[in-house]
Amino acid sequence: MNLGAVIGLILGLGILGGAAAIGSANTGGMSSLWDGISLAIVVGGAIAATCIAYPLEDVISAFAGFPKVFGTQGFTLKDVVQDYVGLAELARKGELAKALDEKPDHMPFRLGGIKDTCRMISDGMSKDDIRTIKENMEQYRALREIKAANAIAKLGEYAPSFGMIGTLFGLIFMLAGMAMPPAPGVDPTAALISNMAIALITTLYGALFAFFFFLPFSEHLKYINEDKKVESALHLEGAMLLYDKVHPIMVQERLNAFLARKDRFVDDA
Amino acid sequence: MNLGAVIGLILGLGILGGAAAIGSANTGGMSSLWDGISLAIVVGGAIAATCIAYPLEDVISAFAGFPKVFGTQGFTLKDVVQDYVGLAELARKGELAKALDEKPDHMPFRLGGIKDTCRMISDGMSKDDIRTIKENMEQYRALREIKAANAIAKLGEYAPSFGMIGTLFGLIFMLAGMAMPPAPGVDPTAALISNMAIALITTLYGALFAFFFFLPFSEHLKYINEDKKVESALHLEGAMLLYDKVHPIMVQERLNAFLARKDRFVDDA
Amino acid sequence: MNLGAVIGLILGLGILGGAAAIGSANTGGMSSLWDGISLAIVVGGAIAATCIAYPLEDVISAFAGFPKVFGTQGFTLKDVVQDYVGLAELARKGELAKALDEKPDHMPFRLGGIKDTCRMISDGMSKDDIRTIKENMEQYRALREIKAANAIAKLGEYAPSFGMIGTLFGLIFMLAGMAMPPAPGVDPTAALISNMAIALITTLYGALFAFFFFLPFSEHLKYINEDKKVESALHLEGAMLLYDKVHPIMVQERLNAFLARKDRFVDDA
Amino acid sequence: MNLGAVIGLILGLGILGGAAAIGSANTGGMSSLWDGISLAIVVGGAIAATCIAYPLEDVISAFAGFPKVFGTQGFTLKDVVQDYVGLAELARKGELAKALDEKPDHMPFRLGGIKDTCRMISDGMSKDDIRTIKENMEQYRALREIKAANAIAKLGEYAPSFGMIGTLFGLIFMLAGMAMPPAPGVDPTAALISNMAIALITTLYGALFAFFFFLPFSEHLKYINEDKKVESALHLEGAMLLYDKVHPIMVQERLNAFLARKDRFVDDA
Amino acid sequence: MNLGAVIGLILGLGILGGAAAIGSANTGGMSSLWDGISLAIVVGGAIAATCIAYPLEDVISAFAGFPKVFGTQGFTLKDVVQDYVGLAELARKGELAKALDEKPDHMPFRLGGIKDTCRMISDGMSKDDIRTIKENMEQYRALREIKAANAIAKLGEYAPSFGMIGTLFGLIFMLAGMAMPPAPGVDPTAALISNMAIALITTLYGALFAFFFFLPFSEHLKYINEDKKVESALHLEGAMLLYDKVHPIMVQERLNAFLARKDRFVDDA
Repeated sequence: MNLGAVIGLILGLGILGGAAAIGSANTGGMSSLWDGISLAIVVGGAIAATCIAYPLEDVISAFAGFPKVFGTQGFTLKDVVQDYVGLAELARKGELAKALDEKPDHMPFRLGGIKDTCRMISDGMSKDDIRTIKENMEQYRALREIKAANAIAKLGEYAPSFGMIGTLFGLIFMLAGMAMPPAPGVDPTAALISNMAIALITTLYGALFAFFFFLPFSEHLKYINEDKKVESALHLEGAMLLYDKVHPIMVQERLNAFLARKDRFVDDA
Repeated sequence: MNLGAVIGLILGLGILGGAAAIGSANTGGMSSLWDGISLAIVVGGAIAATCIAYPLEDVISAFAGFPKVFGTQGFTLKDVVQDYVGLAELARKGELAKALDEKPDHMPFRLGGIKDTCRMISDGMSKDDIRTIKENMEQYRALREIKAANAIAKLGEYAPSFGMIGTLFGLIFMLAGMAMPPAPGVDPTAALISNMAIALITTLYGALFAFFFFLPFSEHLKYINEDKKVESALHLEGAMLLYDKVHPIMVQERLNAFLARKDRFVDDA
Repeated sequence: MNLGAVIGLILGLGILGGAAAIGSANTGGMSSLWDGISLAIVVGGAIAATCIAYPLEDVISAFAGFPKVFGTQGFTLKDVVQDYVGLAELARKGELAKALDEKPDHMPFRLGGIKDTCRMISDGMSKDDIRTIKENMEQYRALREIKAANAIAKLGEYAPSFGMIGTLFGLIFMLAGMAMPPAPGVDPTAALISNMAIALITTLYGALFAFFFFLPFSEHLKYINEDKKVESALHLEGAMLLYDKVHPIMVQERLNAFLARKDRFVDDA
Repeated sequence: MNLGAVIGLILGLGILGGAAAIGSANTGGMSSLWDGISLAIVVGGAIAATCIAYPLEDVISAFAGFPKVFGTQGFTLKDVVQDYVGLAELARKGELAKALDEKPDHMPFRLGGIKDTCRMISDGMSKDDIRTIKENMEQYRALREIKAANAIAKLGEYAPSFGMIGTLFGLIFMLAGMAMPPAPGVDPTAALISNMAIALITTLYGALFAFFFFLPFSEHLKYINEDKKVESALHLEGAMLLYDKVHPIMVQERLNAFLARKDRFVDDA
Repeated sequence: MNLGAVIGLILGLGILGGAAAIGSANTGGMSSLWDGISLAIVVGGAIAATCIAYPLEDVISAFAGFPKVFGTQGFTLKDVVQDYVGLAELARKGELAKALDEKPDHMPFRLGGIKDTCRMISDGMSKDDIRTIKENMEQYRALREIKAANAIAKLGEYAPSFGMIGTLFGLIFMLAGMAMPPAPGVDPTAALISNMAIALITTLYGALFAFFFFLPFSEHLKYINEDKKVESALHLEGAMLLYDKVHPIMVQERLNAFLARKDRFVDDA
């Protein structure tokens, strides 16, 4: 579980909720923060505009991507290096095909990228074909997977815009109403002020959804995509080294270069 | 039909229309949202500035491009891969010329990019010539087709600016008028407030046209352009593989690398 | 003549002028939109800041570049392709020197870029020299010619900033004046409101000059610069093909790859 | 110690503190600048959103990175050049292994990057392996170390946003409260004005934390990262030169090219 | 002397000073534009934040760079081409060493970049070494010299931010003071208005320093840096041509490709 996202969500909701509770104590309670029409304008408007900008399947996969922020991938880059080092001996004997049915000792499963490497080498593909296939797979994977993050970022860009549109709606109706003679028994100033509060709520919703929800979630998905690029670079380098039947010690040296010193795999055996 | 754009447009119009109807119920109705001069300033001004920034034919093709957002291209990248795999056998026999008159079994038509490939190989062009021609076609196609999207984006950039210009017009006239002695029997405060509402309408129109119309449509056209780059990369790779008379199984493997695992073409035969 | 820029300018001036005339009808006329000091602050300030940011000759060539927006270059990329195809036969005979004194049948003049090509090949320069010279000419031409567009863009960036500075000037003087006891017989509220209108005029001028004038003109010059890059790519490709004495049919095929299908040159002969 | 950061911090705090002390002298003192809830919204909200956007370990290493701004690395690029020049003689004799246990005369320690170079050459690695390892180490080091700077930049981006959210909270509650009948004996205008001040404090905190704290610190870490790229380029060039047993005079010439003329190493010996 | 910067500075100061003099004529004079604390917040705050973001030596060299904007470099690119063409004959005779002690006929001095070229060729360095050294010198020179421009740009980015911070200070103190009972004999409205003017001055200073001073100066230094890249490209190309003992006519042709047609060197001899 991605502890950071959970902490961030709880911390943020706690602070904002607490501040709202304290701030609204003398002014009729937190109900003054709730306005259904404002919510519809901000969230509905942002989704509508994003549906025009992106294909429906991207918008759906964007919403499907929200829970991903709370998960982790369950392995480290060090595990990837360790598996390639372990396979280097097998590669030198020309027995990489075995690796397709086994799993490494230090991981509960073998990564798809490593299995692909083993299969392509066992199948006798040329080094250039393997390199081209791996490079194309990564390039177009990155392009595809960034789309969901982009759609969420677009939601975060449109939310404050529709917040502003809703506020303008509110202000125009308020001012138009004030030009009419006030109903008897109604204090026009109080009505104006109360309507102002409602108009500002739409701006508030736009900012909250953008800065506390859509934009950080989008950032996180982009971050994951960047991290996968490092993993893919490891797979490409690993595949080339296994193909060349390079000695495990050199495989370890070459792949460790991708990692921070403290995260490197050191073979104690 | 691009369902997303239709849903987005209906959803957005529904929410904004509903919010306007509810919000204006007590203030003289939705007519307070309509102002013809504001519309002329925002839309006319944005079009005028865009006509200066871009050649007329680009502005026209920008408007011609709006309906494109609601269409789909009628084939998937998987179809392209399948066709190239099917042609690989023909290419090995040196009979690609046949493909020019046939259409593939799984598609109602053969794509222009694939026909170009077959024709160039049958005509005996060199591999380098084919690569150069395909690369240049794609590079300059992308440059040309992004122009309409850019012109629409420019409309979306200028619309809020002219919205602000219109609001400044309104504010200046309003203030200038207030410095004059009020006409007898007119409540100056009511006039001020009513004029403020009209001034804000231009800002509202600028935001609505930009964030609900011009910018999402422009984004969509840019998205389509990016997608065509993937298709073109498939055509280039496919052409090189057909030229080299590569075995269909390898053609399938090489071209599937461009697709997500779930979208890959698997030859069941 | 570039019809788009003319239409844009007239359309924009018409709409803004009409809106101003209608809007100011009840408030003392359009004279409330005129303020000479505001104009000096916005335009003079923007020019002053741009003179610091860019060398004087760039600022001058920026202003000299305004009329360019209304002109057209008088030939299409298709004409360029047609001329290279026509010269291909001459190139095969080694008689490109002739082309220096002739002009093509379909154009009133031969482009400088094509003449350069012919001269360099006739002079016996090596292919690498020609490629390097053409590439350097284009790279540094693009860098030089973008400077005027950049200087105008800078004017468009500084204009609203000086609009804001002028408005702050106005507000500060207005508020400072209001702290003083009002002159007898002057309604202080009317003075405040009238001064507010004047303060806003500077913001209006800043927005008008930026969004209706400087920025669209700068965009247009950048657009022309991009278009010249396509023309230069044609000249480079054409020069290499003529140097290699490639057959006219292949020259046509290779150069048409740069154009949209509907704009391609088809030799009917 | 990084004198600039210390001066900047003291200078900034002094000016802001002095201005606050003078400005608040007649208005009840600087306590009007303190509001705990505002601080919680701005700092807590920015941290919460950043925890969602970035993994927890990046946020922690971001905070761990703040003190780094006050430190210096304790050596110059000239020292690096001098060490490589000194090692060139050793490299020509094939005795680079000695350098692993020694330290250079002009520095209290030998840099890890130089030791790596010596070890890899002594171990008999190929030139291509050394180049690939060094390039990968640098590329992925830069990607990793920029993450902390990016997380701080994100704090600086979210701080003003949560400042705005807090201000909207304050305004909405204030307006909602004003629509209620005032409590007896309370001057409603005074309450409004006092609440406005509190609402603005959150905006102030957002701006202060962003522009005086988060953003400059993030800039500094990015600056250090860029500087390390120059150092890494020196290590790569130095390693290639030592591998090729190049003469010390040429090593000095080649490595000095990376430095400003006044910072170059000149061997007086 | 860079006439443009002088004109810009005088023009800008004249317009702003004149507008201030006219505008303040009826409101107690221009003294209402002066506020020492505002100046300290804007300029001091911007310098403080920049000292944190950049090393002290960069901030100092940024201020040392201001006078540079008023200078010119005293030679044109045409002079550089002319010198290389003149040296081409010497290079063919293998007597480039002579050029180290001479100066060209058309210039009062020989540029350091040309001297470096001559020395490296005379010293018998290989072509690859010369290319690598020249490329590295330029790449790291550009990186170093852009730092001062970046530090000034940062000042221009922080100045309006601290302007806003100062305005918020002013507003908060003003509102806090208004919640207190007014001192006897003081008109609270006049105090409010006068304080508003002071609060706005900080915003004005921030905008003035940014848009009229820091940002244009930074732009100019960036412009100079770009221009030096063209000069360096000439030096690299010239060095390669001299090394290859290319004929002066071809040297002229190759180097003129970097210049606009009207600036090219034509040897009349």
